[in-house]
Amino acid sequence: MNPAAAAGFQTQSIESLSSYRRIALLTEGYSTPFYAKTAISMLRYRREDVVAVVDAGEQGKRAAELFGVGDDVPVVGSLKNVNADALFLGTSVAGGKLPGEWRAIIIKAIERGLDVVSGNHQFLIDDAEFREAAQASGSRLIDVRRNTENATSTGKPFRDGCCRIHTVGQDCSLGKMVVSLELQRELARRDLDAAFVATGQTGIMISGDGVPVDCVVSDFVNGSVEALIRRHDHHDFLLIEGQGSLAHPSFSAVTLGLLHGCSPDALIYCYEVGRKNVKGLDHVPLVDHRTMINAYESLSALRHPARVIGIAMNSRNVSADEAAAERERMRAEFGLPVCDVYVDGPAVLADAVQRFQQERHR
Amino acid sequence: MNPAAAAGFQTQSIESLSSYRRIALLTEGYSTPFYAKTAISMLRYRREDVVAVVDAGEQGKRAAELFGVGDDVPVVGSLKNVNADALFLGTSVAGGKLPGEWRAIIIKAIERGLDVVSGNHQFLIDDAEFREAAQASGSRLIDVRRNTENATSTGKPFRDGCCRIHTVGQDCSLGKMVVSLELQRELARRDLDAAFVATGQTGIMISGDGVPVDCVVSDFVNGSVEALIRRHDHHDFLLIEGQGSLAHPSFSAVTLGLLHGCSPDALIYCYEVGRKNVKGLDHVPLVDHRTMINAYESLSALRHPARVIGIAMNSRNVSADEAAAERERMRAEFGLPVCDVYVDGPAVLADAVQRFQQERHR
Repeated sequence: MNPAAAAGFQTQSIESLSSYRRIALLTEGYSTPFYAKTAISMLRYRREDVVAVVDAGEQGKRAAELFGVGDDVPVVGSLKNVNADALFLGTSVAGGKLPGEWRAIIIKAIERGLDVVSGNHQFLIDDAEFREAAQASGSRLIDVRRNTENATSTGKPFRDGCCRIHTVGQDCSLGKMVVSLELQRELARRDLDAAFVATGQTGIMISGDGVPVDCVVSDFVNGSVEALIRRHDHHDFLLIEGQGSLAHPSFSAVTLGLLHGCSPDALIYCYEVGRKNVKGLDHVPLVDHRTMINAYESLSALRHPARVIGIAMNSRNVSADEAAAERERMRAEFGLPVCDVYVDGPAVLADAVQRFQQERHR
Repeated sequence: MNPAAAAGFQTQSIESLSSYRRIALLTEGYSTPFYAKTAISMLRYRREDVVAVVDAGEQGKRAAELFGVGDDVPVVGSLKNVNADALFLGTSVAGGKLPGEWRAIIIKAIERGLDVVSGNHQFLIDDAEFREAAQASGSRLIDVRRNTENATSTGKPFRDGCCRIHTVGQDCSLGKMVVSLELQRELARRDLDAAFVATGQTGIMISGDGVPVDCVVSDFVNGSVEALIRRHDHHDFLLIEGQGSLAHPSFSAVTLGLLHGCSPDALIYCYEVGRKNVKGLDHVPLVDHRTMINAYESLSALRHPARVIGIAMNSRNVSADEAAAERERMRAEFGLPVCDVYVDGPAVLADAVQRFQQERHR
């Protein structure tokens, strides 16, 4: 029994997420790159389905002015004159609590019959006021992080023809989802059958499927990911979004369960140039790249052999010259292709994936 | 909001578990070593608090006849003539569903005012009939696996004087809890300040504290264990119960979150002699000891350095001669003390812990 069922409220699945074509993104008071990560990713990868950004303090601007992506999507002060079919909450705030000023906006959206989609830890469906409003209007409340995953892993292999590429990292929050999405799009442009597999709330909002691994009960992390991959292993390439880091003091359980659940064939190692300490834990120094790469390869091998075939560096905090020097240094040190997908595009890494696939079939 | 709160039912904590002095153990129909693991461990480590075992099919016997432990604790057909203060469910069945024939026994216990304690995945408190009976009689329903852990790790060090010893394994279900408990008792006999830290349902029923790590949401596994250790790091030695295995296809997330959350100083590596495949996944071969030990040491080092200081072998499935030969072979190969705590006692491993502690302080 879950709270929603206890309250007689129909549980909503995430399956309808990809059906919305007129999405409003709520970032009220939080329209900064740091907070509005979900909104920015939606604008980057689902631009065609977004009709507005809601932030009264920024109204009249265009999305591109606010976030550097989203072209001329208008920033509006309210939903009054917007023809939307869903309101997506555009941030995933620390601790997961909804900003207080959002309540009135969400209630109004529900009253107008919009579905509301949230990736926060605090579930919409656990809020009596939201539930009552939704029951009155027929709106759906979709909590992307909510799950009832309860399958353990079978340990059985995936379809041999499915090449699984997993992004792993030195730390969290450095672009693993973006690298997976950019690679998937590049392989698709090359007429290859490649699918993105989401493992976090933003990726799920973009792709309409996935498992929010950080919210799954620990006994079922590996199993829920295995089942997710099995649903998709008819594709020739899967680009599987990574989470956290094997060395992250808080999130290493999530990272290893995901790694073993998806049993990748190849890994893309991701890091941020210049980052010295664990994000959010400034007293904990990061572990060096060589040790991290060895850890990912040796821990993969306990389940299924995988090697790092490329490095994705995020150079947002250094100059172009510094980035170029770093790229050469890393290439020389690791003998692997290196690029910043935000700046250089994903071609170099897509080449590495194709080479890997050819060697594998030789 | 949780289901119990939704139903207006008071949430019960595990804090009272250690206060029961007249415990009845329910194993009805499941009085075999395989199923009755919880009952057997209660009889081994909390014998003085147990007044009866309930199994109508075995009534009239003594616990020692049924399980090889528990001396003359009587096996009874019902609770009618037993003066008990709590009924502990003595198995943790696959899938976690309660055996159907137990319902009537549990209802009768509740009606007689006994508290009921369960380590199953299926919670007592989610059962409307149990809840109503308990509200009528004043009984408490305690689901040991139920938790609301929601803290992430701080990554901060523990008290330097607290030596943390963690049991890790080649697989699950091979005696890690017993090794931790036996070591704790041996160190205490040597007048050392040593405490056992439980991380699974049976350990929690024995010690009255702990975190059921396999039921914690994955984002909070590391953090919940860190908080648990911090509550206990005033002790000189902590013997921290391990779970699963870094190579287990289903449970490696649990194992790594626990390893990083407790950041041990030393590890005891546990395995079962003769086991070839992962328990419950017969098509998955076990990873060799050398690789496993390297994995535990290198993954520990990402957070805090730890080394394996001893090996606990479980020789239940081989002859005494085979066990002796295996012990010598492992000693020679790894240069570490090796013993079967069930057969040899834990002295050899306790010596290793004391040597480690002396070297550490030199």
